[in-house]
Amino acid sequence: MTLLKNDLLLRALRNEKVERPPVWMMRQAGRYLPDYIKLREKYDFFTRVQTPALATEITLQPVDQIGVDAAIIFSDILVIPQAMGLTVLLEENKGPVLPKTIISKADVDALITEGVEESLSYVMQALSLTKSALNGRVPLIGFAGAPWTIFCYMIEGKGSKTWEKAKQFAYTQTALTHELLQKITTITIAYLKAQVKAGADTLQVFDSWSGALSPADFKVLAQPYLLQIADALKEDAPVILFPKGSWYALKDLSNSSASGLGIDWCVSPEMARELTGNKITLQGNFDPAKLLAPIPEIKKSVIEMINSFGAQKYIANLGHGITPNIPVDHARAFVDAVKEYSI
Amino acid sequence: MTLLKNDLLLRALRNEKVERPPVWMMRQAGRYLPDYIKLREKYDFFTRVQTPALATEITLQPVDQIGVDAAIIFSDILVIPQAMGLTVLLEENKGPVLPKTIISKADVDALITEGVEESLSYVMQALSLTKSALNGRVPLIGFAGAPWTIFCYMIEGKGSKTWEKAKQFAYTQTALTHELLQKITTITIAYLKAQVKAGADTLQVFDSWSGALSPADFKVLAQPYLLQIADALKEDAPVILFPKGSWYALKDLSNSSASGLGIDWCVSPEMARELTGNKITLQGNFDPAKLLAPIPEIKKSVIEMINSFGAQKYIANLGHGITPNIPVDHARAFVDAVKEYSI
Repeated sequence: MTLLKNDLLLRALRNEKVERPPVWMMRQAGRYLPDYIKLREKYDFFTRVQTPALATEITLQPVDQIGVDAAIIFSDILVIPQAMGLTVLLEENKGPVLPKTIISKADVDALITEGVEESLSYVMQALSLTKSALNGRVPLIGFAGAPWTIFCYMIEGKGSKTWEKAKQFAYTQTALTHELLQKITTITIAYLKAQVKAGADTLQVFDSWSGALSPADFKVLAQPYLLQIADALKEDAPVILFPKGSWYALKDLSNSSASGLGIDWCVSPEMARELTGNKITLQGNFDPAKLLAPIPEIKKSVIEMINSFGAQKYIANLGHGITPNIPVDHARAFVDAVKEYSI
Repeated sequence: MTLLKNDLLLRALRNEKVERPPVWMMRQAGRYLPDYIKLREKYDFFTRVQTPALATEITLQPVDQIGVDAAIIFSDILVIPQAMGLTVLLEENKGPVLPKTIISKADVDALITEGVEESLSYVMQALSLTKSALNGRVPLIGFAGAPWTIFCYMIEGKGSKTWEKAKQFAYTQTALTHELLQKITTITIAYLKAQVKAGADTLQVFDSWSGALSPADFKVLAQPYLLQIADALKEDAPVILFPKGSWYALKDLSNSSASGLGIDWCVSPEMARELTGNKITLQGNFDPAKLLAPIPEIKKSVIEMINSFGAQKYIANLGHGITPNIPVDHARAFVDAVKEYSI
């Protein structure tokens, strides 16, 4: 194993002292980068995801071009429904579509939960290839969608503002809901373990739609499965849970086996620290839209953000994925401001 | 003036003791009601809004058919941009479109802020007509959009997931942003005062998109204008502020001139009470999607909700507007459960 030259991210996740906070950006390998757009013009989305050489090239772009402190493997949370036997289509600039959704017990019974290391072998190959190419420059992050979020897509078949079809399913077919959430959890744990074996240094679990749930429903439909994943992985690699919008869960999740919690921009750093009792490493939470502000304003806001979180037990990041319309030099200003921060 | 036979809502807003909490539903006059759909098939959206007899008929439907404790005038928050001189189009089942958005100082300068009582006289007529038709059965709620939310539509020209064009405008044209927000605030205050004169017993201000703002940005872009409105109306009628998604502002807003705060379903009642120091009447916060649960489950959840908020200083409502796909008997079960609640 190559020794990491920059292990700021891992040290922050282990609550070790750092000279400055590590920084990366959700969707840092994405549509705001001209070199990514060039590849997108040549290869469709799942070709990019399923071709290890392409996934590696895309994963490295922000490391080389923006100078982030971590690489996150280029992939998609919806490879899990695919591995479970469902079709997922993705038209460029549109949301994903699952032509056949889960309706009945027979649909749930038919789902595959084994062999993910083989069915998603292209992810493992991309991780290994990226790990070699990084040559210890920065840590490599693996990831998966959280069970509730994957459940949402499996029931609705596409994105939704309210996820009310998924909620209706959960409210009316309780036992089947938990059977499905458990199946997703089981395969996700195997998938994340395989990612660590293939080279991931740390893992992030994206609960992109948990914020649609009330605090009471979150405790039933999202939290148990997030905790199960964090518990199962605790000997493998540090896990960052990102329950977007679910600020109300921060307290409970700070008592979990997770090493870090991602937070969106709708929580003040002070409140996030208060809710988590300063016990756990926090990651976030710059409003991606604020990257459209003038560069001096971005840099000023980054410093305020770090000052508010404190430089320890902290990973600078956005509160959600970077959007396609962000100028590259604004993204770089964000990263630079963190790197220039002196304690 | 006719004496109100059912003044539960007003008593709750004045922190007076009630036998049970009052109940109404945001968008209670809407697409889940078959009689509303019949009118929608005959008259387009702005015809329904601008014809006092139709607006009155629609406003009364949920009072007659669902038994809510308040009527809310059928109208739209985007009548204010219209009164300011902008065109607003609304295609059925699609979001609103403003063909000409605000780009420059000249655009802001050209906006009208006076004469709203005349330009929106149809709203005042609808209020008077409804007030007479109600004959004191329940209080009548008037409403307006909050300045930040109206600003969002004026800049973007349509709905948005991220409102990043509106935010970019705010981050890059600070002075012009506040000039525009102030103009919206000024006309909104006049509009709300006129509504009280025309018969509104209480007023709700909808900040539907404030939750897109970080706590720090909310304090600059949303809060001052909400406070200004609450202050200006405090002698006229009780004001309910509903900053959807902005749970982080509850503490500050509980110290305002407002009489009530609306909250969405992503805050637990206990946390909402804690954040507001039990000082102010709270309204909400049933997840509209939970109306898709079986009726016994709805009724059980309503009782839990009231128990958690407490029956005093509380207005039972949804955490957001009722959606078109809710069965009428489920909406009625929600209202009935509140009415059957015994302290």
